[in-house]
Amino acid sequence: MKELLQEFKDGRLELDQALERLRHLPYEDLGYAQVDHHRSIRVGFPEVIFGPGKTIEQIIGIASSLLEGSSNLLITRVNRATFEQVRGIAADAEYHESCGAISVRRDRAMRGRGVIAVVTAGTSDIAVADEASVTAEIMGNQVERIFDVGVAGIHRVLSRRQSLQSARVIICVAGMEGALPSVVGGLVSAPVIAVPTSVGYGASFNGVAALLGMLNSCASNVTVVNIDNGFGAGFVASLINRE
Amino acid sequence: MKELLQEFKDGRLELDQALERLRHLPYEDLGYAQVDHHRSIRVGFPEVIFGPGKTIEQIIGIASSLLEGSSNLLITRVNRATFEQVRGIAADAEYHESCGAISVRRDRAMRGRGVIAVVTAGTSDIAVADEASVTAEIMGNQVERIFDVGVAGIHRVLSRRQSLQSARVIICVAGMEGALPSVVGGLVSAPVIAVPTSVGYGASFNGVAALLGMLNSCASNVTVVNIDNGFGAGFVASLINRE
Amino acid sequence: MKELLQEFKDGRLELDQALERLRHLPYEDLGYAQVDHHRSIRVGFPEVIFGPGKTIEQIIGIASSLLEGSSNLLITRVNRATFEQVRGIAADAEYHESCGAISVRRDRAMRGRGVIAVVTAGTSDIAVADEASVTAEIMGNQVERIFDVGVAGIHRVLSRRQSLQSARVIICVAGMEGALPSVVGGLVSAPVIAVPTSVGYGASFNGVAALLGMLNSCASNVTVVNIDNGFGAGFVASLINRE
Amino acid sequence: MKELLQEFKDGRLELDQALERLRHLPYEDLGYAQVDHHRSIRVGFPEVIFGPGKTIEQIIGIASSLLEGSSNLLITRVNRATFEQVRGIAADAEYHESCGAISVRRDRAMRGRGVIAVVTAGTSDIAVADEASVTAEIMGNQVERIFDVGVAGIHRVLSRRQSLQSARVIICVAGMEGALPSVVGGLVSAPVIAVPTSVGYGASFNGVAALLGMLNSCASNVTVVNIDNGFGAGFVASLINRE
Amino acid sequence: MKELLQEFKDGRLELDQALERLRHLPYEDLGYAQVDHHRSIRVGFPEVIFGPGKTIEQIIGIASSLLEGSSNLLITRVNRATFEQVRGIAADAEYHESCGAISVRRDRAMRGRGVIAVVTAGTSDIAVADEASVTAEIMGNQVERIFDVGVAGIHRVLSRRQSLQSARVIICVAGMEGALPSVVGGLVSAPVIAVPTSVGYGASFNGVAALLGMLNSCASNVTVVNIDNGFGAGFVASLINRE
Amino acid sequence: MKELLQEFKDGRLELDQALERLRHLPYEDLGYAQVDHHRSIRVGFPEVIFGPGKTIEQIIGIASSLLEGSSNLLITRVNRATFEQVRGIAADAEYHESCGAISVRRDRAMRGRGVIAVVTAGTSDIAVADEASVTAEIMGNQVERIFDVGVAGIHRVLSRRQSLQSARVIICVAGMEGALPSVVGGLVSAPVIAVPTSVGYGASFNGVAALLGMLNSCASNVTVVNIDNGFGAGFVASLINRE
Amino acid sequence: MKELLQEFKDGRLELDQALERLRHLPYEDLGYAQVDHHRSIRVGFPEVIFGPGKTIEQIIGIASSLLEGSSNLLITRVNRATFEQVRGIAADAEYHESCGAISVRRDRAMRGRGVIAVVTAGTSDIAVADEASVTAEIMGNQVERIFDVGVAGIHRVLSRRQSLQSARVIICVAGMEGALPSVVGGLVSAPVIAVPTSVGYGASFNGVAALLGMLNSCASNVTVVNIDNGFGAGFVASLINRE
Amino acid sequence: MKELLQEFKDGRLELDQALERLRHLPYEDLGYAQVDHHRSIRVGFPEVIFGPGKTIEQIIGIASSLLEGSSNLLITRVNRATFEQVRGIAADAEYHESCGAISVRRDRAMRGRGVIAVVTAGTSDIAVADEASVTAEIMGNQVERIFDVGVAGIHRVLSRRQSLQSARVIICVAGMEGALPSVVGGLVSAPVIAVPTSVGYGASFNGVAALLGMLNSCASNVTVVNIDNGFGAGFVASLINRE
Repeated sequence: MKELLQEFKDGRLELDQALERLRHLPYEDLGYAQVDHHRSIRVGFPEVIFGPGKTIEQIIGIASSLLEGSSNLLITRVNRATFEQVRGIAADAEYHESCGAISVRRDRAMRGRGVIAVVTAGTSDIAVADEASVTAEIMGNQVERIFDVGVAGIHRVLSRRQSLQSARVIICVAGMEGALPSVVGGLVSAPVIAVPTSVGYGASFNGVAALLGMLNSCASNVTVVNIDNGFGAGFVASLINRE
Repeated sequence: MKELLQEFKDGRLELDQALERLRHLPYEDLGYAQVDHHRSIRVGFPEVIFGPGKTIEQIIGIASSLLEGSSNLLITRVNRATFEQVRGIAADAEYHESCGAISVRRDRAMRGRGVIAVVTAGTSDIAVADEASVTAEIMGNQVERIFDVGVAGIHRVLSRRQSLQSARVIICVAGMEGALPSVVGGLVSAPVIAVPTSVGYGASFNGVAALLGMLNSCASNVTVVNIDNGFGAGFVASLINRE
Repeated sequence: MKELLQEFKDGRLELDQALERLRHLPYEDLGYAQVDHHRSIRVGFPEVIFGPGKTIEQIIGIASSLLEGSSNLLITRVNRATFEQVRGIAADAEYHESCGAISVRRDRAMRGRGVIAVVTAGTSDIAVADEASVTAEIMGNQVERIFDVGVAGIHRVLSRRQSLQSARVIICVAGMEGALPSVVGGLVSAPVIAVPTSVGYGASFNGVAALLGMLNSCASNVTVVNIDNGFGAGFVASLINRE
Repeated sequence: MKELLQEFKDGRLELDQALERLRHLPYEDLGYAQVDHHRSIRVGFPEVIFGPGKTIEQIIGIASSLLEGSSNLLITRVNRATFEQVRGIAADAEYHESCGAISVRRDRAMRGRGVIAVVTAGTSDIAVADEASVTAEIMGNQVERIFDVGVAGIHRVLSRRQSLQSARVIICVAGMEGALPSVVGGLVSAPVIAVPTSVGYGASFNGVAALLGMLNSCASNVTVVNIDNGFGAGFVASLINRE
Repeated sequence: MKELLQEFKDGRLELDQALERLRHLPYEDLGYAQVDHHRSIRVGFPEVIFGPGKTIEQIIGIASSLLEGSSNLLITRVNRATFEQVRGIAADAEYHESCGAISVRRDRAMRGRGVIAVVTAGTSDIAVADEASVTAEIMGNQVERIFDVGVAGIHRVLSRRQSLQSARVIICVAGMEGALPSVVGGLVSAPVIAVPTSVGYGASFNGVAALLGMLNSCASNVTVVNIDNGFGAGFVASLINRE
Repeated sequence: MKELLQEFKDGRLELDQALERLRHLPYEDLGYAQVDHHRSIRVGFPEVIFGPGKTIEQIIGIASSLLEGSSNLLITRVNRATFEQVRGIAADAEYHESCGAISVRRDRAMRGRGVIAVVTAGTSDIAVADEASVTAEIMGNQVERIFDVGVAGIHRVLSRRQSLQSARVIICVAGMEGALPSVVGGLVSAPVIAVPTSVGYGASFNGVAALLGMLNSCASNVTVVNIDNGFGAGFVASLINRE
Repeated sequence: MKELLQEFKDGRLELDQALERLRHLPYEDLGYAQVDHHRSIRVGFPEVIFGPGKTIEQIIGIASSLLEGSSNLLITRVNRATFEQVRGIAADAEYHESCGAISVRRDRAMRGRGVIAVVTAGTSDIAVADEASVTAEIMGNQVERIFDVGVAGIHRVLSRRQSLQSARVIICVAGMEGALPSVVGGLVSAPVIAVPTSVGYGASFNGVAALLGMLNSCASNVTVVNIDNGFGAGFVASLINRE
Repeated sequence: MKELLQEFKDGRLELDQALERLRHLPYEDLGYAQVDHHRSIRVGFPEVIFGPGKTIEQIIGIASSLLEGSSNLLITRVNRATFEQVRGIAADAEYHESCGAISVRRDRAMRGRGVIAVVTAGTSDIAVADEASVTAEIMGNQVERIFDVGVAGIHRVLSRRQSLQSARVIICVAGMEGALPSVVGGLVSAPVIAVPTSVGYGASFNGVAALLGMLNSCASNVTVVNIDNGFGAGFVASLINRE
């Protein structure tokens, strides 16, 4: 674009020609500019590679390229073998066993204004909660983990009420009937991001029961992400928690 | 059967013939006997007419026949016009506006050993709860109604904990996410009968979300009936509450 | 609780008795305190009545009671007849025709830190968008409406990019394939609350296609509420937009 | 709480301070009290560990802790390898091969007032029935097993009518079309807990056909639990069978 | 075709030309021939007009044309207004109120070898059963109606065992859980055609529960038709009952 | 029963006692009689063992017992290892590789009056067709196999029209869109039993698309069995084909 | 953009400034250009208003604006009352009763290279076929209508084989089992656009059965549009038929 | 047919006999003729073997037979082991690893008039895109691959706008929310064939979310094929691209 303008100023290009070429300027340029612009808005955002459906080679290739930049890197849903390879190109990579995430955290600035509480109904939901926590942490947030406080033992969640009420955003992870976000949502005035999990059997339909429960929550402060989408919940919670 | 035995004893019937005829004795007789036997077991059970799909004439016809017996009568899901007609043959009939039930309660003996608590999550669930209550009452139970204690305001249900804990059976009626039975189930050691309602919109799918939530309840003491089936819940609760 | 403590201090109550009574202190008290506490946290929150399933009488009754307090009142999904009645008890009530909401806005303090953009894919989605806007406005937010910018004419949404990028929260309302939140989500770094609508026919299954599309959005900053739930989106957006 | 009261009586704490501290007394304490209270209500209830989604180490850890108490222990849906480990910490543990349950039954008091009949439609349903039976037995009930009496050979269930009619609660386990509970329900006046199983193929949809059949049962005394949820059925049946 | 052959024989057409013209002979002719051929096979089959989606004018038009032939005519799922018009062109038309069928039966030959039993689970299923019966009767069969013998009162169906066992084909009509065909199927060795009905509510999903139950029947002699498809059941039963 | 009658005749039993004992005569006896009676009706029916969910030991046990009788034996959906074991107790057992059926055919009487045509849309449907064929053959029918005549090459099915039209019953096996039964149904006047198969991918949903297509067939002579249920189709076809 | 370039050439704008402003040039300009560009590509395309969800006033408003341009106008799915109003602003508007479409066809140039055949399985599918035909005609195509050639009378479609084989694109409209596209697809080598309709009942699920059948078509030349989407089929067929 | 005509002309056959025999002339002949005719229309079409559900032996057998003809051969969805065998009978066979396709391309004539663009939303969609590309190429088309241009980074697709706008047909492959076809459809005036993929997790339901999104596309130029059906998309695109 710079050259084009220069050519125009130098008179090598007529007004009409310049207009025409600008009009047809491949979007790729605007696109790249948009990306750059985004980057400036998105300071502190991690680069993210969604692992499933990619070969180890592809992941290493993308990761190598991204690590040349200065930002943090998050790779989700990969196994330990992938981690061993990633460690080869980033010695400071960490593997989060429960959720299969790899994090390379070089920018350790805290960007969140408050605490993000990550709450689970049961112990089997912890893997998804960990994906959310790792995401929130690499995006510069303080995370408080509150696990196994399902609604069938209501005292468990009530006993953590103060932690919940002092959080700025709450991520609520639950399988089976997915009722926890409604109870938590009623206890706090912060936004609650509900994550249904595929934990359960029979009529849980791999998380559909929990998903529907959360979408129909009678608490007004609940929004929902896809089944098992801990990453998405952690990402949005981080956006909300930013200044 | 009596005549057959007499004929055999009198020699008018051979052993083989008697055996043959007994073998082929129409089930209708055994059937009637079975019905009678049931009647003796089922003292205090109401006769029940499920209204939908029947004409007023059919309902009046069946009701007239049943009212010749001495037991109570329950007609469900009919409109006031039907009630006006029923009142013509049973002056003591009562109409329960919210759920469209007609009750004729002549046997007023109490048969339940404890209280049946009927709990709703919201005010829109009350019609279904009323069908359950009317059913439980005509079957000789004391009913305690606890309405609008949905989980998004958890203090509401907690404040009724003592009523819940002293009930012998709990009927828990909820639409939307159907989370109430899990919370109530965790508070008590009595059986909880969960009734999903069609209250809600969008992804509630006319009660499917609540139904799935209840089937996947993490509370072990919860069983479920069909969407909006207040009658069934009241009926089973009454059976459980009997000595 | 105060009296109980006094009785104990005065010796009218033994330690064991006091412990026992405290242990069984009805949650209703703690509950009320919790409600009060919520109120103090929730300054500026409107009282909300969800209209469907309530009679005009019930709505008027609840509204009368709530209007004695000083806060704003929002009644959703009612018809004009209900509005006429509500106007009888609140002359300053406004009716929002497109979405059937009634608002009584007495506290007009602005509480949001930025602008909430409410975006629709088509003109038929505007009713749901209006419910979201009315909710956000009564909760003290500045709302920018951006309508009919569906993705099949991508220039429409791109031309509004600057408005979108300067919003602090975006509510994205779409029926049919529900693709708009993915495109919008990719253009901004703010949280996007996606509202599927029941607009469409055939395989849209009353909003299910849009709902699934939004839950599977490839944009990381998207969360989802129930089909047609403009109120919920407006509510959560307001929470996010608060300081 | 005791100390707090004593401090108050001794004058080391003002009334206001005492009130404040009681008001903010962490729910964890009330929670523990609630748990304790539950324990006293729940004498004879087993501790239960739901196996799926837990590592052997986690199961052993939880089991060790629970076995310090005096109550019975039930671990569901684990394999023999887990059992071998559990036997290391509880020599009296038993493994129920068909359903993968481990029971440690130290309190052998009978608590049920009558017999619980566990009925299956087919032989493939027996695993789920066994889970129900083991649960009912560890909770102190006498169980009568009646297997393979599906409705396509109606004489099979009719021939067991007397056993069925003398049971105080019936657990009815069926896959495929799930019709058995309707037939059994019509034969008895006891509550029938229907357990759909994932037995079947094609349009059985892993138990959905049976589940829907049971939810729509024309017998009024039927309630339903989740697909394959033998434990839940055994648990509720035990509650009903208690005094 | 006749003319073509004659032309060829007369030499007005070459072999190649004749071959070509035969090869390209519009299928319409073969088609008509096929229809004629069918007609000869299908002696005694009624002409059938499926009413829904056709205007009264269209129905009258088609009926007029068909009545010029000699066969019977069946019009399904129309209202009385349509019947009044049909009576104008066929004074001997009969209207079957319950199922909305019109029959014009001119060929009254009996073609079935045995009795077709039409059985319903409940009284609300009778409309569908009537459509099946009317169809079977107009196709020359003797029909035995056995109504309201649902499985929750198993004696009812058992008492009709002899009628069932002497039928040559059984049509079994049931809504709700759709269990009747399994029980009936087990009692007889004749083919059972199961017709699910949309009778029920909630999780019956307008007949889906019954449909799935019937498709998963554990009785080997059951086949299934579409929900409420009494006509199809009557038609196939008639084919089976033919010699 | 015989003894009871004798006791009564001998005066060792009063009329009332005899009546009472007959009334409570265990259904098991009537049951067995019913079974026997069935046996006499069901001459030529094979004993059938549905393999899935049974251990080899169970299958051998049941097979041993059944083989003591004189009838044919069919075991469905087992692997070759099971066959090897079965051959140990029945040297004349045959294994049908494609569908995993074992047949022991000792009664080789032909009982069908006509030919049963077994038609498939594709080659992948042949396994299910073979299950149907083996079943029909062991029940004494002549089977004509017509494979791979799917509707997208309509000439293939048309070229077999005469075979189809001369069959007395047609079994039509198809996956994917399941359209073949409609075309075949329109070509013949015999009953068509449609068997949807799980052949397909994506939106075939493991046979649901084919199942729905068949249930909605515009041909009036089509009934449907469960997905992949070749056995059921062969069984019913055999019943229809009997005299 | 022109002014910006001029400013830059005149030196009133620095290179960096010009670059920056070009980078942020509102997409609205590019957008409008894109629309214009489209218009030139899209000569002969009609303007289209999808009626449902719009008031008569909105439709008239949009139509008035569009009719100022020179192109054709199509309004879909509106009633006769709307047509009366539209006629007020466009005297040459035509109303297509069966499908509720209004067309204003001013550009009558033929743009299609061949014939578009619009085929239906039944008479009830004609409304959807008409929407497709009207769309194709207003886009300058010759349409051949072939109605009521469903596959259960295969000769009907075969007899129209030559018409089908000479069409350049085929639109195939069918409800119920939706089998027609597979048969037609096998007869021709042109692309077939399949339109499922909501014609049917019970397990047709308002067109889902037909939709699934078409998506699983074994003919390779079939693509599918939404249920009842005659407009979409006509539109795409027109694109294909263009040079 | 020739012989028949000759016999008739020679008088060895009467008119009636000739008519009769022509009437019953096996469709197999007409069928073969139809196939031949198709072949002539279908010059340049590949022979296609759909791999799944066929043994290697079957595939080799069919391939051997087809390769005797002169046309191209495409085998889809097989593994490398199958390819090794195929190479044994066709040394010029190529294996396309990503999608498991084998192509034998002997006729290399270009038949498409323009370029077919194959576009994917993500990298995981490339396997399906490759199946489409291989199909289009073997049918004589020039293919332009445009990968990983999903809508959440809208600049990516916009930057390829010129490629898209110059394509004569576009195949648009996307999983998850399936939004890409709507955006692409809005950018071009060519037909867009949308291919949903099973890429995604949770509420993507193995491609159902993408499928529904595409069926509900607000772009008028979009048609849809089955989930993961790259072959079908490539096939139809080739038909459209032919002259």
